[in-house]
Amino acid sequence: MTTPTEFQFTDYQPYDFANRRHIGPSPAEMTDMLKVIGYSSLDGLIDATLPSAIRQKAPLVWGAPMTEREALDKLRETANKNKVLVSLIGQGYYGTITPPVIQRNILENPAWYTAYTPYQPEISQGRLEALLNYQTMICDLTGLDVANASLLDEATAAAEGMAMAERVSKSKAKAFFVDADCHPQTIALIRTRAEPLGWSVIVGNPFTDLDPVDVFGAIFQYPGTHGHVHDFTGLISRLHQTGAIAVVAADILALTLLKSPGEMGADIAIGSSQRFGVPVGYGGPHAAYMAVKDAIKRSMPGRLVGVSVDARGNRAYRLSLQTREQHIRREKATSNICTAQVLLAVMASMYAVFHGPKGIKAIAQQVHQKAVLMAKGLEKLGYRIEPESFFDTITVDVGHMQGLILRAAVAEGVNLRKVGDTQIGMSLDERTRPATLEAVWRAFGGNFKIADFEPSYRLPKGLLRTSEYLTHPIFHMNRAESEMTRYIRRLSDRDLALDRAMIPLGSCTMKLNATAEMLPITWPEFSDIHPFVPADQALGYREVLDDLTEKLCAVTGYDAFSMQPNSGAQGEYAGLLTIRNYHIANGEGHRDVCLIPTSAHGTNPASAQMAGMKVVVVKVRENGDIDMEDFRAKAEEHAANLSCCMITYPSTHGVFEETVKQICELVHQHGGQVYLDGANMNAMVGLSRPGDIGSDVSHLNLHKTFCIPHGGGGPGMGPIGVKAHLAPHLPGHPETDGRPGAVSAAAFGSASILPISWSYCLMMGGEGLTQATKVAILNANYIAARLKGAYDVLYKSKTGRVAHECIIDTRPLVDSAGVTVDDVAKRLIDCGFHAPTMSWPVSGTLMIEPTESETKAELDRFCEAMLAIREEARAIEDGRMDKANNPLKNAPHTVEDLVGEWDRPYSREQACFPPGAFRVDKYWSPVNRVDNVYGDRNLICTCPPVESYAEAAE
Amino acid sequence: MTTPTEFQFTDYQPYDFANRRHIGPSPAEMTDMLKVIGYSSLDGLIDATLPSAIRQKAPLVWGAPMTEREALDKLRETANKNKVLVSLIGQGYYGTITPPVIQRNILENPAWYTAYTPYQPEISQGRLEALLNYQTMICDLTGLDVANASLLDEATAAAEGMAMAERVSKSKAKAFFVDADCHPQTIALIRTRAEPLGWSVIVGNPFTDLDPVDVFGAIFQYPGTHGHVHDFTGLISRLHQTGAIAVVAADILALTLLKSPGEMGADIAIGSSQRFGVPVGYGGPHAAYMAVKDAIKRSMPGRLVGVSVDARGNRAYRLSLQTREQHIRREKATSNICTAQVLLAVMASMYAVFHGPKGIKAIAQQVHQKAVLMAKGLEKLGYRIEPESFFDTITVDVGHMQGLILRAAVAEGVNLRKVGDTQIGMSLDERTRPATLEAVWRAFGGNFKIADFEPSYRLPKGLLRTSEYLTHPIFHMNRAESEMTRYIRRLSDRDLALDRAMIPLGSCTMKLNATAEMLPITWPEFSDIHPFVPADQALGYREVLDDLTEKLCAVTGYDAFSMQPNSGAQGEYAGLLTIRNYHIANGEGHRDVCLIPTSAHGTNPASAQMAGMKVVVVKVRENGDIDMEDFRAKAEEHAANLSCCMITYPSTHGVFEETVKQICELVHQHGGQVYLDGANMNAMVGLSRPGDIGSDVSHLNLHKTFCIPHGGGGPGMGPIGVKAHLAPHLPGHPETDGRPGAVSAAAFGSASILPISWSYCLMMGGEGLTQATKVAILNANYIAARLKGAYDVLYKSKTGRVAHECIIDTRPLVDSAGVTVDDVAKRLIDCGFHAPTMSWPVSGTLMIEPTESETKAELDRFCEAMLAIREEARAIEDGRMDKANNPLKNAPHTVEDLVGEWDRPYSREQACFPPGAFRVDKYWSPVNRVDNVYGDRNLICTCPPVESYAEAAE
Repeated sequence: MTTPTEFQFTDYQPYDFANRRHIGPSPAEMTDMLKVIGYSSLDGLIDATLPSAIRQKAPLVWGAPMTEREALDKLRETANKNKVLVSLIGQGYYGTITPPVIQRNILENPAWYTAYTPYQPEISQGRLEALLNYQTMICDLTGLDVANASLLDEATAAAEGMAMAERVSKSKAKAFFVDADCHPQTIALIRTRAEPLGWSVIVGNPFTDLDPVDVFGAIFQYPGTHGHVHDFTGLISRLHQTGAIAVVAADILALTLLKSPGEMGADIAIGSSQRFGVPVGYGGPHAAYMAVKDAIKRSMPGRLVGVSVDARGNRAYRLSLQTREQHIRREKATSNICTAQVLLAVMASMYAVFHGPKGIKAIAQQVHQKAVLMAKGLEKLGYRIEPESFFDTITVDVGHMQGLILRAAVAEGVNLRKVGDTQIGMSLDERTRPATLEAVWRAFGGNFKIADFEPSYRLPKGLLRTSEYLTHPIFHMNRAESEMTRYIRRLSDRDLALDRAMIPLGSCTMKLNATAEMLPITWPEFSDIHPFVPADQALGYREVLDDLTEKLCAVTGYDAFSMQPNSGAQGEYAGLLTIRNYHIANGEGHRDVCLIPTSAHGTNPASAQMAGMKVVVVKVRENGDIDMEDFRAKAEEHAANLSCCMITYPSTHGVFEETVKQICELVHQHGGQVYLDGANMNAMVGLSRPGDIGSDVSHLNLHKTFCIPHGGGGPGMGPIGVKAHLAPHLPGHPETDGRPGAVSAAAFGSASILPISWSYCLMMGGEGLTQATKVAILNANYIAARLKGAYDVLYKSKTGRVAHECIIDTRPLVDSAGVTVDDVAKRLIDCGFHAPTMSWPVSGTLMIEPTESETKAELDRFCEAMLAIREEARAIEDGRMDKANNPLKNAPHTVEDLVGEWDRPYSREQACFPPGAFRVDKYWSPVNRVDNVYGDRNLICTCPPVESYAEAAE
Repeated sequence: MTTPTEFQFTDYQPYDFANRRHIGPSPAEMTDMLKVIGYSSLDGLIDATLPSAIRQKAPLVWGAPMTEREALDKLRETANKNKVLVSLIGQGYYGTITPPVIQRNILENPAWYTAYTPYQPEISQGRLEALLNYQTMICDLTGLDVANASLLDEATAAAEGMAMAERVSKSKAKAFFVDADCHPQTIALIRTRAEPLGWSVIVGNPFTDLDPVDVFGAIFQYPGTHGHVHDFTGLISRLHQTGAIAVVAADILALTLLKSPGEMGADIAIGSSQRFGVPVGYGGPHAAYMAVKDAIKRSMPGRLVGVSVDARGNRAYRLSLQTREQHIRREKATSNICTAQVLLAVMASMYAVFHGPKGIKAIAQQVHQKAVLMAKGLEKLGYRIEPESFFDTITVDVGHMQGLILRAAVAEGVNLRKVGDTQIGMSLDERTRPATLEAVWRAFGGNFKIADFEPSYRLPKGLLRTSEYLTHPIFHMNRAESEMTRYIRRLSDRDLALDRAMIPLGSCTMKLNATAEMLPITWPEFSDIHPFVPADQALGYREVLDDLTEKLCAVTGYDAFSMQPNSGAQGEYAGLLTIRNYHIANGEGHRDVCLIPTSAHGTNPASAQMAGMKVVVVKVRENGDIDMEDFRAKAEEHAANLSCCMITYPSTHGVFEETVKQICELVHQHGGQVYLDGANMNAMVGLSRPGDIGSDVSHLNLHKTFCIPHGGGGPGMGPIGVKAHLAPHLPGHPETDGRPGAVSAAAFGSASILPISWSYCLMMGGEGLTQATKVAILNANYIAARLKGAYDVLYKSKTGRVAHECIIDTRPLVDSAGVTVDDVAKRLIDCGFHAPTMSWPVSGTLMIEPTESETKAELDRFCEAMLAIREEARAIEDGRMDKANNPLKNAPHTVEDLVGEWDRPYSREQACFPPGAFRVDKYWSPVNRVDNVYGDRNLICTCPPVESYAEAAE
């Protein structure tokens, strides 16, 4: 130790290390827990759990862990290296004003950001309502029938639009037409997506270059990336004549003034909802949208919130058509989307709720008039504005002055867009101030004042919007901030998130999202940087990216990382593309077989499919391990064409398989690469490195293992790590290296949430991260031990241990008591818990992952609830309780149950206060059990009509 | 309009002006409401409500209102003018680390900061528990028996300690001894307080200058302001021999290592809890504490949380001995304390809960060892450290080098304390880093590294603490952040604050605290400035103070403001002292009569008493107006000695009296000054100015009229405005002008919350503020109109109008149905409302102040609840409902009621869902009606013992 950055006196422990804050059980509690499991030390337990062959040699170290204060100071210093200029770059990212009431009460509120994906609808009614508002808003603005609850980003949504077009198109053509006026990153992603699937991409001017006969679909940008606003009605109608599908990428703010894609006849509209109050954040996270015609809704990717009823017949929201999703059509998938950007979609929807149609229209008009004023000034200087009519974006030809003007603008504090070598583009936005226009004029050589010009309109005459939007009462709330605050509070109170109870979701790692990690992301130095600013304005981000990369390399044993993929599934896809490109570069482009065990995450085969691979399924043994014989056989059989295998480690069954190294060797022997799914990295960090085991590429779920919160179902980050030989084949990006293969709209994915993972690493240090892994394993084994006798743990290692999660079998209860896994899950709500992962990877089971962040007290509360549920089932088995009318079948119990007639053979007390439930602080489910079948049969995916709304408001 | 700062296109309204966000009813709703009241325009209503004689001539204008974004940018720019250096100045203010989990979930959480004082205990159980934790923490650390729930600041607490000593002392002496080692501001406040009361203050070295016979009490600082740590046991014992009282001002962090005041025999301990996680904030707000021996607890000022039971016999918290407070012993008061610093006390208590005794002790040890290291470095440079043993503060004599070293330190980024002309002091703290020590050494001419010195202890041997503290289980929670987050959430969920429903508290103005106003206060540029930094480091604060003063002058018609008073009562006191000083300066020091109407706030006579005045009470007429005849008679009778009158306008009866100008003239005729209590300024801003009416001085409640949130019972700010002739007599401060008369520890009171009021003014503009006043009057009149027929409004103007609040009479219900005002208030909880002000100013009535921020929908919800309650009473009157067993008597209803046996003559549905109550989002009171008598009879003011705690945790 040379120069310590913090006092380290020897006679006591520093008190505020994240290590202690982040790790649930205290040292004393750990001792007790180990006793229950039957070990005398944590390391003893770990040794018995992790096969020694896969243990990493050297401990994970990178200097002393920082205190919260040190880390925050470090983050501040790093943030200050980013320069916050006014960016008029546009190109899909625009200045916007996040209403403070939304910033504080949603983005900075753990009740919203620590929530999980709303798979358990009863305890997710708040965000489901917010998402329904989002879908309604998107349908209204696009003029289409059904919208999903968001996608990753606009470019991904465009690629999804293409893939969907291909699925539903009646044309047999295998090409897709792309408007050259699409954003460059959109074009890049479409190319990336099309290539492995064998579709050709035609980029051009749709009015001159598009022959509908050639294509299964086309995408047009509206307004175009350089500002043109065209009417695509005629083109769309021609596309329809050949059975081709029309996708329109539209700016939702522009749609408040312009004719909607739906009114032009478009089948699909996609775009970003970023400029509805979500900061640019160096590229993300933001919510992209997709809306489609009713006829093709069942082919739409992504999550879809719908309206159903609960057991009392009251309205209740839920995810509709869920079968399309987690259980993605594996071998035939052209989409692996299994996440959304819920937190950001919620923000965008609240922006619309807060401003209402008039307010949003006013914002759009202001933006437009700023653009007109800007144009007038430039015209006075003699520049010709391209295009003639526009919404917010203009482009001017400046010839050889381009560099000079761009630099002058930067000196004035404004970033403009470099277009080709002679043009300059600019997009005006909600935040643009008069001073900014004057600064830009100065950069062009003009010394004008705003007052020198009259505001006016230059919208295309024939395309003015006449149809209504946001007509639903929710968008006509009183705009007083009190009302908004209370609406947000009411919704969040309906939901159960990490700020109230543990969420023991297997495979989803709902660990603590420490506040110190969350604070920096709303600092303007991180949130107000446009993704395409010059590199010297983002040196703070550079530092985060570089240092985080270095740390992730140390954790994984890989040599390089790409931070581009902004979800886990996107990471899988990017990793497989990297393998594909590697084979092609080696002249082995024919290698296209991907071995995947049946136990894999549903996204694995979907991603492989998207990467142009043929999925060959490998068997899994009774005990959950990969069937080595079958694996060997398949590897040999496909040796000539073997591209790779995809395995998850520890396995999705929650066990550290001993054969993992053999598998890697086997695949390498046959010329393949190993993709190790990093979903379960929480069980490996500091103990075992994929890179050492023999894997070539993995994605990491930063939103799981590295503390980015789940946001109620997004954002996420899925960067991929690779061995050196694969590094040259990582995704490129048009705005950085210009190489192909982009998988996200922004070069560094959802960059603005990376500081969360980085601060986590800084505060934990290598040692703290390792301790976290050990405790994650301890906590899982403790639960398994406590539930012993009541429930069987389905998969264990030879030593009887589980990894960081355990699957318990509730199937016997079906036969003995008619109690389903659903009944158990819903009864847990009465106990104040979010259910574990249900029926995955094995139907009828519960997969429990407590994470390292939960204390013994909370684990015990959960175990007591689970044991009590077992006893309730036993009462049915013994005939002491009715088989149909019992607390398990009637769960969750609500206040409505208490208030109404009580004709049940058990007491209200039993119903509402089972073991585990808090007394004073009980969480009440706002609805009774939700009827899934009803919801899918009567699909409603926008806000219900006024009358029913009035009822609900009461 | 010359250069607009924002676009102002003519064809639509800008959308995000705070005006619209802040003001509840939409224009359309206002029209409807006016119709109900019987007016066709808002101005018509205002004209009928405000006597034209008191209307201000010119409208209130100061330029265009800013948008939220503009205001936030302006605040950012202003904040950047403050320079954040490391301050080791100490003197009662120390660097501390606010745990992020506390910052985000308490300080930045509207559920905590918008709550009201916990007078309605059923809906305040969360913050009452947090305050009980606070009291327990203070008792433990000080070694005394009973602690209150906080006072305004350490210096005020010291003055309160003196006043209390005088009340309980058995000595007849009229002098108070003050340790010269007290902080200068403490000495100043004691002098200010003693002088009007006729007590003399002896400042000196207690070991040489104190003769117990001379004094009724003494105060010692522990550790002293320059770092000395003395044992006062002997002195205290000598004081007790003469019946005198010993007060010890103690640093609670030091008390973790040092023998407690209680163990030395002290009767009273006071101090600040700032360094338990509350930012210095340029002086405040922070929570001061007071703890006393059991025998004298009933004489303690301030609020006291106690334990009682509810109607079911379950534990419930409440404010104890409340009669001591609001209804302060008027004419005999030596304290006017009627507020606390709840939000800050809650933060400090959570800091202790989070760190626990071991953690806090570790922090204290670290702080001490940093001081020792610092001393060692300075000793190596040849300086002699005074004192020999110390905790965190050292002082060195540097002779003529003082200026040089202080400047060198500033150049190194560190503020040290200037002590006299030859010494330098410094206090080390939780935030001090090794680099800071090295920087200070450099400023002293030394080039050392931390590693050059060994850490060791220099605590006074005989004073080491051996007794335990923070032994209660609440301080031994698991320290994982998840647990802490959930504990904070559970507590906040028990309370009903503005983020869930309107709080129609008469005279308390629970208006919107807009998020945009709240965001800046946690910026380090505002929160991390020590109150005694050189002026050039606080230029941002200077701008806030100056511009806010200018605006408040415009609003009130005064010529100068003092921002020093940090509560409304403190403002009254300061205002009266100003009048007193004015008379003395004019050679009329004999003027000491203060006329106060019987309808005055209880604090008025108490403040007058404290300012050395004789209170003469003036009658009030049946209709609530001041009895002019009596007023005239009293003024004449006391003409020779008339100092002033104190009036409230509009009156505490919620009416604009027409005679106000006459009163002012009358008082002036007789040589007196007019104090106009600004508590109801919310009804005047933009319409009428105290300065124009004839008033000479007022305090403003910035925490009411100017949007500072109530924080669950503090902080507040009560700056005073005066006419020019009084300006020279405003309070001085030892750290600014060195003049006497300081009333707060810091020169600008709770400076760090002033940005809230300032941004409110910036965003509203003069026009917006005026509109707010009008709508406050509209909302009150609307409620009065809607409740007509059901309840009588007690006081109205000749035109039948009320001002910004209305008092409704519930007394008839006592006779007709046995329904008390308490029953109505508790039943409102079932409807999801905080009750209006109860039994003040008239016993048995409810005073309702809706404020301008509430929407028509929320007002209607409230009115429907009130009307339904009237109908329930009617059912009793008619014999349709039992007189003893009915929803009003049994209110509030809890989940416990629902779950248990139901033997009531009304349904569960009726009980829990009366009109007004939300269905899905119902707020459930965590306890049944609290038994007040039981609580006072069995006074328990610390956390209940372990066994009962274990129950409660369940």
